[in-house]
Amino acid sequence: MTVLPSPISRLTAALGELPGIGPRSAERLAIHIVLSESKAVSDLAQALLEAREKIHPCSVCGGLTEKQPCDICADPKRDASLLCLVEKAVDIISIEKSGTFRGKYHVLGGKISPINGIGPEDLGCAALGGRLQKEPVRELIVALPSDVEGDATSFYIARQFARENLSITRIAQGLPVGAGLEFADGLTLGRAIEGRNRLPSY
Amino acid sequence: MTVLPSPISRLTAALGELPGIGPRSAERLAIHIVLSESKAVSDLAQALLEAREKIHPCSVCGGLTEKQPCDICADPKRDASLLCLVEKAVDIISIEKSGTFRGKYHVLGGKISPINGIGPEDLGCAALGGRLQKEPVRELIVALPSDVEGDATSFYIARQFARENLSITRIAQGLPVGAGLEFADGLTLGRAIEGRNRLPSY
Repeated sequence: MTVLPSPISRLTAALGELPGIGPRSAERLAIHIVLSESKAVSDLAQALLEAREKIHPCSVCGGLTEKQPCDICADPKRDASLLCLVEKAVDIISIEKSGTFRGKYHVLGGKISPINGIGPEDLGCAALGGRLQKEPVRELIVALPSDVEGDATSFYIARQFARENLSITRIAQGLPVGAGLEFADGLTLGRAIEGRNRLPSY
Repeated sequence: MTVLPSPISRLTAALGELPGIGPRSAERLAIHIVLSESKAVSDLAQALLEAREKIHPCSVCGGLTEKQPCDICADPKRDASLLCLVEKAVDIISIEKSGTFRGKYHVLGGKISPINGIGPEDLGCAALGGRLQKEPVRELIVALPSDVEGDATSFYIARQFARENLSITRIAQGLPVGAGLEFADGLTLGRAIEGRNRLPSY
């Protein structure tokens, strides 16, 4: 016989598929679940199914939402002249948590990557072009990752969508807040120096 | 608006109830689930419900099982003369994994703890007594934790169930395998020295 009764080992296997859950944690969680109140377990199962069923990409921006369009796209108080381009839907959540952006978003869905055979036509570029034509966007803020593919994609976007009355910017690269210079790599330091800003002279 | 659509935040809250899953991991898992295949999510939900519904304590030993009695109690190849007493059902899994025990088990369900108002009558002592009378047990191996309450409970068991033709033993305390003396605390070292064994002289 195997050590774990099969419903527990099946649950352990299913939990072990989740990111960051190793075999030992999966088993600990499975045993915890078996010993929990039935109600708590059915609530968790329900929450899983409901989240997966109800959440879909927003038809406008591509963000995760249970409404169409999403709350951000539908919010008249958000500044429609600012459009922030992100790689993934979850990036919207990160920016929203920072509470520092009051414009709208667009999810590109990836980065240009010739090595993986991903070209501009595989990404949400056409949808982005459509929005830039229809919506009163005056600034497109490119918030793609600061890796090689993010750089390439940013440059492509800047060239492709260049037009009068549209400023295309990219979020700054530099030292993380709170970090000393000794922890920054040379490339980051280089970008931080390039992107230096004038200090106010009171 | 809140940052996360409510099905995601409900799922995050439900996942955050699990042991060892902090708020950030819970959110990362919730987002992963929302972006997973529907099939994988319904399989996980199904595994949760099934494990909780199908697994119950064995009516004989108290171990976790989907059959009554459990595979171990029902296995004629296990040595019924050896009975191992553990505190919790999951302790059986730990011992089975070690592959070093071929007898049967009994789950006590706790330790005697006067400070928490837990006496022998709150534990599975009566059921243990019944099994010791009915079953051909010749050795009761007490595998309770080596803490104060585990010690007290072990001594109680030894006194309570003392009788002829039953040897009551306790699993050894000492250095963990692979550990140097510099990592052992004084109490453990003391127990290791007390419990010293004669080396074979070839």
